[in-house]
Amino acid sequence: MLQIQLPRLLAALDSYAEYGRDERGGITRPSFSPADLEVRRRFIKELQDLGLDITIDGIANIWGKLKGNGKKKGSIVIGSHLDTVPNGGKYDGALGTLVAKEIIRTVIENNITFDHDLEIVSFTAEESNDFGLSTLGSRAFVGKLTEDELRMATDSTGLLLSDALQKVNGDIERIHEMASMHEEKRIFVEMHIEQGKRLESNDKSVAIINSLVGVYRSKVTVIGEANHSGTTMMSHRHDALTAVSEMILAVEQICGEDETDLVGTVGKLEVLPNAVNIVPGQVEFVLEIRGECQERMDQVVDKIETKWNEVTQRRKVQISQSILQQQKPTMLDEEIVSILQNSAERISVPYMTLPSMAVHDAAHMSLISKSAMIFVKSIDGKSHCPEEYSTPEDIKIASDVMLNGILAIDQQMD
Amino acid sequence: MLQIQLPRLLAALDSYAEYGRDERGGITRPSFSPADLEVRRRFIKELQDLGLDITIDGIANIWGKLKGNGKKKGSIVIGSHLDTVPNGGKYDGALGTLVAKEIIRTVIENNITFDHDLEIVSFTAEESNDFGLSTLGSRAFVGKLTEDELRMATDSTGLLLSDALQKVNGDIERIHEMASMHEEKRIFVEMHIEQGKRLESNDKSVAIINSLVGVYRSKVTVIGEANHSGTTMMSHRHDALTAVSEMILAVEQICGEDETDLVGTVGKLEVLPNAVNIVPGQVEFVLEIRGECQERMDQVVDKIETKWNEVTQRRKVQISQSILQQQKPTMLDEEIVSILQNSAERISVPYMTLPSMAVHDAAHMSLISKSAMIFVKSIDGKSHCPEEYSTPEDIKIASDVMLNGILAIDQQMD
Repeated sequence: MLQIQLPRLLAALDSYAEYGRDERGGITRPSFSPADLEVRRRFIKELQDLGLDITIDGIANIWGKLKGNGKKKGSIVIGSHLDTVPNGGKYDGALGTLVAKEIIRTVIENNITFDHDLEIVSFTAEESNDFGLSTLGSRAFVGKLTEDELRMATDSTGLLLSDALQKVNGDIERIHEMASMHEEKRIFVEMHIEQGKRLESNDKSVAIINSLVGVYRSKVTVIGEANHSGTTMMSHRHDALTAVSEMILAVEQICGEDETDLVGTVGKLEVLPNAVNIVPGQVEFVLEIRGECQERMDQVVDKIETKWNEVTQRRKVQISQSILQQQKPTMLDEEIVSILQNSAERISVPYMTLPSMAVHDAAHMSLISKSAMIFVKSIDGKSHCPEEYSTPEDIKIASDVMLNGILAIDQQMD
Repeated sequence: MLQIQLPRLLAALDSYAEYGRDERGGITRPSFSPADLEVRRRFIKELQDLGLDITIDGIANIWGKLKGNGKKKGSIVIGSHLDTVPNGGKYDGALGTLVAKEIIRTVIENNITFDHDLEIVSFTAEESNDFGLSTLGSRAFVGKLTEDELRMATDSTGLLLSDALQKVNGDIERIHEMASMHEEKRIFVEMHIEQGKRLESNDKSVAIINSLVGVYRSKVTVIGEANHSGTTMMSHRHDALTAVSEMILAVEQICGEDETDLVGTVGKLEVLPNAVNIVPGQVEFVLEIRGECQERMDQVVDKIETKWNEVTQRRKVQISQSILQQQKPTMLDEEIVSILQNSAERISVPYMTLPSMAVHDAAHMSLISKSAMIFVKSIDGKSHCPEEYSTPEDIKIASDVMLNGILAIDQQMD
């Protein structure tokens, strides 16, 4: 069985973690920051040292190609992103990118020739960023963000995205050229940390991801009656906050009863007038539902709204809603998923097959490439914080599943 | 039966409502504002025209005395306040003050001589104000605010209270003299609008108030675990907001089950980090309990805390509390209450006997004077808003109960 070199991978992870190291023990390396510029320079240098052909596209995604024997058309692409959230951890993004580099190095060192080209990618600005455009690199690459949108984008200081791109060898004038690159990107496989606890709960190291969740967000306003907290008896109140408390518990209960991985969250909430001695007259909040199946999501939203209507009518408060986001679940490629599953079985790795509850670059790449993902167990589910951690053992297991999976994909897919 | 002149009282209410009239159809007349200066000037002039002896004490409370025949020592004091909240109504404060003036005028016009002196008072800054000192005039008068506290008080612009007082003929140097005035203020009766719906619900015009609520406020912090809203399964969450939702509903239920007039409110609440895609890690809120009986309040707080402990333990979230306020209920004077009740019965006015759920100047005056209050029905319970309204009929009934009550107090009390 072909294996990656774990010590080398761990050393790379540690070393890359020094770019953007912050005072709070985390990593602050948003795209276009000085730390990002430095890490990109190092990454490109290392790809060149491996003998890869480097391309930096218009949106500044970094591609490095190992030419195959030409028997099969196009590339198998592997990779992730190198940017982090502020005060983030060393695995989110970097692990998937550095595993890809380690896999290519292993392939080269073992003198394996692929039928396809084998490519590595590091996408620009995957994390939420100051331009308000998360998964920027992959979304722009597949054409989900138009050239006009990209030209108009500015950050909170007024910096144009087009100017930021120049710092990292991107070029807004070359955005239109990316479409011509789609055809060659035949297959895309991304490794990422789970950022949840499903693997840990099930005592597994690795998951093959067969879909990415849909995300539904709705802004909800509940209007009751603001009144003096002393003189308004309990039975005379139309308290917007007690109504919303019932509504929040209904979300928790209905989503908790669902037997799939669907989740529902109220994470943002404001009370008006928000004074200690006034019965709340208005509460605004955002409901978020994520699920792997649009039909289940629709059913759950329906159930929640039915319960909410019962609550608001009984309590005589007004409710209004506006939908903020309705992103459908993404199904990943069944064939690729199946090859990765078989690869795990062949090397005797127990695995789970899971939907991804977060959006990743693979969600967008799946529009143009046959795509799948591999998740590595996150200890305690922690992510986007310095405590983010995956064990060397789990990383080794997942990397070998991916390496052997890529070899199988090259052989089994046209 | 002696009666006040309703048209005259209503005309005074309308006319005083013009001082501080704002663009939103309400009255904005905080103490020390230009509108307050004007209304004070007019009020003092009218008291002088009635032949009263005017005193303005150190904290700028306005007192006007109609000398009695000297048979009994000290004064029966009636009155309330003339300041309003921003965009307030024309009854809160002004009604009690102008009814007192109308009563004294009626007494004078009917050539009635009191055994006690009869005094009117208008207290300074009863409403919440920019100095952070509500019921300022009565609290300072009875000595609950020390001279040091008053000397150090400033508003948000840095204006010293001592400088503001000069504008309205108060004087920080005369604060210490107020203690010598306590002895003569034998009895205090204040009329006020109910600011609630208990009278309306019971189809009564008037209530005799036998106590003022205690107020308990506690700042509560609940700490759960902030996590990614997509990757954290429902069963793995420690959501501070769903925990607090249960806690808020427990407050509503426990206070709703209480058969007294006790009320419980969560009016102020903040969620952290308050992001749509993060399971809330922390919620801070203020619990307020108001009740007429300290023992019941203690029991209810106990019940709530027992339930909260159950919720937080079950949900594995942390809870911490700090008490912000623990003001005990104020019992008003039984004898005065009883004379007012009898007065209502004698003139065939159905009435309720109620605790006041809001704090009023009478709460503080009760420390030095035998005190009671009379409430007039508020339509729809509205207060601190332009829609604040009490009907002329209800005002007439309550005023006559007060007038005849004062006459009886003068005769029956030493």
